Amino acid sequence: MTIEAANEAGLRGRRLRLGMVGGGRGAVSGAVHRIAARLDDQYELVAGALSADPERARASAADIGIAPERAYADFRTMAGAEAKRVDGIDVVAIVTPNHLHHPAARAFLDARIHVICDKPISRTVEEAEDLVQAVQASGKVFVLTHNYPGYPMMRQAREMVASGELGTLRLVQVEYPQEWLTTPLERSGQKQAEWRTDPARSGAGGCLGDIGTHAFNLAEFATGLRVERLAAELTTFVPGRQLDDNVQMMLRFAGGARGSLWSSQVAPGNENGLQLRVYGEKAAFVWRQDHPDYLHYTQFGKPPALITRGGPAAGQAAAHATRIPAGHPEGYLEGFAQIYADAASLIRAHDAKRPPGPAAALLPTAGDGLRAMRFIAAAVESSRRDSAWVTLPL
Amino acid sequence: MTIEAANEAGLRGRRLRLGMVGGGRGAVSGAVHRIAARLDDQYELVAGALSADPERARASAADIGIAPERAYADFRTMAGAEAKRVDGIDVVAIVTPNHLHHPAARAFLDARIHVICDKPISRTVEEAEDLVQAVQASGKVFVLTHNYPGYPMMRQAREMVASGELGTLRLVQVEYPQEWLTTPLERSGQKQAEWRTDPARSGAGGCLGDIGTHAFNLAEFATGLRVERLAAELTTFVPGRQLDDNVQMMLRFAGGARGSLWSSQVAPGNENGLQLRVYGEKAAFVWRQDHPDYLHYTQFGKPPALITRGGPAAGQAAAHATRIPAGHPEGYLEGFAQIYADAASLIRAHDAKRPPGPAAALLPTAGDGLRAMRFIAAAVESSRRDSAWVTLPL
Amino acid sequence: MTIEAANEAGLRGRRLRLGMVGGGRGAVSGAVHRIAARLDDQYELVAGALSADPERARASAADIGIAPERAYADFRTMAGAEAKRVDGIDVVAIVTPNHLHHPAARAFLDARIHVICDKPISRTVEEAEDLVQAVQASGKVFVLTHNYPGYPMMRQAREMVASGELGTLRLVQVEYPQEWLTTPLERSGQKQAEWRTDPARSGAGGCLGDIGTHAFNLAEFATGLRVERLAAELTTFVPGRQLDDNVQMMLRFAGGARGSLWSSQVAPGNENGLQLRVYGEKAAFVWRQDHPDYLHYTQFGKPPALITRGGPAAGQAAAHATRIPAGHPEGYLEGFAQIYADAASLIRAHDAKRPPGPAAALLPTAGDGLRAMRFIAAAVESSRRDSAWVTLPL
Amino acid sequence: MTIEAANEAGLRGRRLRLGMVGGGRGAVSGAVHRIAARLDDQYELVAGALSADPERARASAADIGIAPERAYADFRTMAGAEAKRVDGIDVVAIVTPNHLHHPAARAFLDARIHVICDKPISRTVEEAEDLVQAVQASGKVFVLTHNYPGYPMMRQAREMVASGELGTLRLVQVEYPQEWLTTPLERSGQKQAEWRTDPARSGAGGCLGDIGTHAFNLAEFATGLRVERLAAELTTFVPGRQLDDNVQMMLRFAGGARGSLWSSQVAPGNENGLQLRVYGEKAAFVWRQDHPDYLHYTQFGKPPALITRGGPAAGQAAAHATRIPAGHPEGYLEGFAQIYADAASLIRAHDAKRPPGPAAALLPTAGDGLRAMRFIAAAVESSRRDSAWVTLPL
Repeated sequence: MTIEAANEAGLRGRRLRLGMVGGGRGAVSGAVHRIAARLDDQYELVAGALSADPERARASAADIGIAPERAYADFRTMAGAEAKRVDGIDVVAIVTPNHLHHPAARAFLDARIHVICDKPISRTVEEAEDLVQAVQASGKVFVLTHNYPGYPMMRQAREMVASGELGTLRLVQVEYPQEWLTTPLERSGQKQAEWRTDPARSGAGGCLGDIGTHAFNLAEFATGLRVERLAAELTTFVPGRQLDDNVQMMLRFAGGARGSLWSSQVAPGNENGLQLRVYGEKAAFVWRQDHPDYLHYTQFGKPPALITRGGPAAGQAAAHATRIPAGHPEGYLEGFAQIYADAASLIRAHDAKRPPGPAAALLPTAGDGLRAMRFIAAAVESSRRDSAWVTLPL
Repeated sequence: MTIEAANEAGLRGRRLRLGMVGGGRGAVSGAVHRIAARLDDQYELVAGALSADPERARASAADIGIAPERAYADFRTMAGAEAKRVDGIDVVAIVTPNHLHHPAARAFLDARIHVICDKPISRTVEEAEDLVQAVQASGKVFVLTHNYPGYPMMRQAREMVASGELGTLRLVQVEYPQEWLTTPLERSGQKQAEWRTDPARSGAGGCLGDIGTHAFNLAEFATGLRVERLAAELTTFVPGRQLDDNVQMMLRFAGGARGSLWSSQVAPGNENGLQLRVYGEKAAFVWRQDHPDYLHYTQFGKPPALITRGGPAAGQAAAHATRIPAGHPEGYLEGFAQIYADAASLIRAHDAKRPPGPAAALLPTAGDGLRAMRFIAAAVESSRRDSAWVTLPL
Repeated sequence: MTIEAANEAGLRGRRLRLGMVGGGRGAVSGAVHRIAARLDDQYELVAGALSADPERARASAADIGIAPERAYADFRTMAGAEAKRVDGIDVVAIVTPNHLHHPAARAFLDARIHVICDKPISRTVEEAEDLVQAVQASGKVFVLTHNYPGYPMMRQAREMVASGELGTLRLVQVEYPQEWLTTPLERSGQKQAEWRTDPARSGAGGCLGDIGTHAFNLAEFATGLRVERLAAELTTFVPGRQLDDNVQMMLRFAGGARGSLWSSQVAPGNENGLQLRVYGEKAAFVWRQDHPDYLHYTQFGKPPALITRGGPAAGQAAAHATRIPAGHPEGYLEGFAQIYADAASLIRAHDAKRPPGPAAALLPTAGDGLRAMRFIAAAVESSRRDSAWVTLPL
Repeated sequence: MTIEAANEAGLRGRRLRLGMVGGGRGAVSGAVHRIAARLDDQYELVAGALSADPERARASAADIGIAPERAYADFRTMAGAEAKRVDGIDVVAIVTPNHLHHPAARAFLDARIHVICDKPISRTVEEAEDLVQAVQASGKVFVLTHNYPGYPMMRQAREMVASGELGTLRLVQVEYPQEWLTTPLERSGQKQAEWRTDPARSGAGGCLGDIGTHAFNLAEFATGLRVERLAAELTTFVPGRQLDDNVQMMLRFAGGARGSLWSSQVAPGNENGLQLRVYGEKAAFVWRQDHPDYLHYTQFGKPPALITRGGPAAGQAAAHATRIPAGHPEGYLEGFAQIYADAASLIRAHDAKRPPGPAAALLPTAGDGLRAMRFIAAAVESSRRDSAWVTLPL
């Protein structure tokens, strides 16, 4: 059964009421989250604090059909007002620049509203720790939109690893090269480049925080392993840039696996070259996000095989995250939508005091967000200490 | 500006009210159309005649949030009732098996409701001619969901051809191999296989009508050329099958270009191997639907180049059909959604008596549907006449 | 055991003495044949009539270490003189333009010298028939250097088909597009382009004879099937060109399989895009000459697999034609050399009146050359008769 | 002009007389060297000490046509005897296991015979230093068969970097994964696996020495950069194995570039996954040895382009190392042969006291061999010191 069929097969009473913080006119991430929320028809967007600029916030809300009285000028007002409404939002999506993730999430958790939050969870480990505690204290659902765990073939891979098909894992090679910051784009007025290279808004990691964390998160998700120690070198190649634009790292995983992580934003020819390669005693897989429906799988001693989403070797975990038959490519938006779809199931189960389905366990949590912040801190420390091995709390 | 930004940027007053015929529980195409309609937030689904089985129709409607009073037991009742409502549907999506396309479309056109209709438009040339006339008589919008013209890189290709970058075109090689009917699946109870191999429900073409028409439509769309004559050989490889499961064809285009078309449903290893290769005097391109964000482009005498959706060589036509930045793959649902998004723009313009935007000209029409039926008829005739060249009206 | 090990493992007494006709300074094909002959160390080149220009013939011979007294000014003199020497050549390689293949081969067969001859065997069916008879009359070995049957993965494919792994074959799609004649290169003084587009030197087929025959030969070799009828369209796109530069063809094979053949020399982006795709009831394979060590193989209902030369699924036929371990690419010269190596084995067996090894049966013969000439004639006739189906003698 | 044409165009008086040490029956590397030496017809193999086992040495020599009186039982006898012959060998190829490289090379250099030696040059830095001195003292040619610098596209890349097309280099990502030692193959009696995992015969590096040195050598060759410091982690995954089977490394290059190196012999799915990716301020390239005729090249801000051997963007350096036209793949043997061809040119120039051609500067030297040994020593030291950065003498 495809997810859409599942979603539509009487599993819900009504669409969840969704609010949004950030994502006003011109913000790409807001549009992505809205499409993701719509795709499986689990949400209706009814409120927003879409911009720190009140006029822009109002106009942006009007653009997308939010009623004027639920177009707020700031997220704190929104949290308070929505908490009081009988038809208040069930859940808020936070899609601001990084530095607002923590305060906005706190505001909604304190108002006892579920939170879907863009990654990274915060700018610092301390903020992340605070949020983990706030989530626990609130008893509400908190989902972090690390989107790559939403891809069917990453769930397929995780399932295969967990089943023992690959044997004990030995090696995890993950990389995420991009090219877009090859030149000092942040000095051209490009907004994305500005805030992503600004420590005040992005935190201690540049490339490290922006995409290195994706690579880290995906490697742990797909393998079920945990990085125990890392030795890193952060580099800033573009003169004048304040944060790293290239990250090299060696990894030691708990249990003995080894690996490396490379992320870069100065690598021409790479739009989004996220690639994960995992090698076990018995088999190995390779996945590339630019062709996400394919999992290249090799059992040692047999010919390499191509497992496709929906094809003969794909299992239940992939099928759960699939909307259309094999051979018709799914992509980024569908993977993102899967996070929203599974979040909806989790929220519904939570609110109905039902146990959640198995996919809930695959959703990135505040704990994953904290883990990513610790990863950033460890990499920064290692790099400052001439690439010494630094331990990451498990 | 991405399509989502455009869609949300104050270009609409309200979502269009959408009805659906067909697409009840278990029907893949219904789910696809609904996702496509939702993706860019231009429609709300408010009515349906989702199944010929009244109980199933009602249950399916409940699944997807259609109010009970607008869950109809048959499409004629629906057309009549919706035409009378003040808040009646603006447009209906017809997603039934082929044999119902014509009567359903007639019913809604007659009720003066816009129509979005799955391909093929009908089972016969005569039905298609009737619909073309009905569309003209009604003055309503009729959009056929040939989805491949919705892909950004096919619009990019069409734009490049039209601009003369390839020079005079010489060769058009198009193919659409699949594997799913390699065995007599229709005898296993699989519904899709049953009706697609049944002349009563599918018409005169099997593989020819199901996917050969996609190949034909895409070849003409991307090149702007028209097939003038064809010499075909239809084959049925699986014993007992009533319709062709493999199609070979040589093509002569008006103006002198040559080409060939191959479609098959008995080709193991091909989930959906749609591929279009076009060669001109100066340059050539190759596109494969399984990696739809890539257009392989070679100017004669220069190295082959990879034009990506959102990348440095992509133009306005591609950008119009794009939601997310380069490097994050889009796929089938996004291409399908583009047809819906452009159809919404066309309907809005039509209803406001405004001239439509340029993308309206890219939407498949009833005329394209008629053309595809003539293509089927010509291929069947050629094959019957031992592959003689048969002329296709331009 | 690799071929080199086999060759060197006491299977020979001495290198075969090789003569060459054609292949003087600047002739690419001469160099290719010489490398192919040297690669497995089965031949020593001792005589030649390398050019029709006596001075060039002498200088070319000196370049490559042929003794002056065995550097002949014409092939008839050479045949006569070598036949008389005690240490005369065992075998001659004919690498001239097409129109000289027949007279040169006749001369050496008449002198009772084995012949290795470049394809096509002649310019006309009649010449080819004459050579077939001459070979039979002479009792000598005649090998045609269709090189693609020399590739390990084509032998692997042939073996798999023969073993029944693919089930009854249904479809054979073969194509050989090139780009080099996109412009009227023959008017620029380029020698290759000149003679290949000249009917007097090339025969009735342009693109058809040059590379269409390769596609035809390979399709029959790898499948073991025979083309029974064909319907063709030959086109000349470049104004003023005397021979076809594009070939489209539908194929009917004896036994019921269908297929198509496309070859072109006006397809930008294709250096040598030879590709063979074969689909059976149970499985299918795809092979591309630009990555010749890979055979893409799909059993219906299983994930596509990659069979590599030397990898776990490669069998004896591939191993016989392999020199180096898996993962180190072999290419064109190695495939060509395989024809020479197997020809040496055949010649040695012939001269020793021993039965030849199994690979001898894989070598292209004069009969294959005649078949290719009939293929050319049939295609020309079909195209002249508006693509009527023309029967090819089996 | 292709290399073959060049070689044959009167540039030589006679073939160089070649001897071989190692490479008896069953030794793959001996066969590879012999093919490489034959391919461009610059050498004739006339003497050998092919095995440490006298009987095997004699039989192996007979296999390949070496006269009995020049089939030696040990390399010292061979060096002495050949040095005394009027027709003694010009050059010896040393293709033994690693531990014999140094003593054999010394013996022939001392006998004033040119040496072509398999890599690595020795087992230890000290032996390598000794050989560098011995080469200088002897005044003879010493060529190390690091074969990857023989590939046309690696020469193309080096030329492009040197010309400044990529701008200042920032990143060098090189990797060489294999799968063949995933299991304890060395305990199965497989000879290759035995000596390559034995410190006594291989030296201090397992995977590091066998293929890590190839990656290191190629990275420096193609970029012209020098590794200044490295931080390494060597791992042995297969229980009981004495040497590393996986290598992770971070690299700092003189001048500020960064990079990483990964080599592994326990990575299923990789036959020989050597890949080099180089990113500069203005452009980048990617090369994979499994498709060696392709260089993927992206200028920042332009679409990725495919530079092919012989294609429109390939330059002089590639053309020098090319035998056949574009589109016909060359591979491992041709790259290897290029080292032999350029070595022949260098030896001829040396013996004629002529200045060598420009390609001589591209040949790997004893200095490169010493550098590789220092690389091994540095990596071993770094790994022992918990991946501390270790300086490599420039």
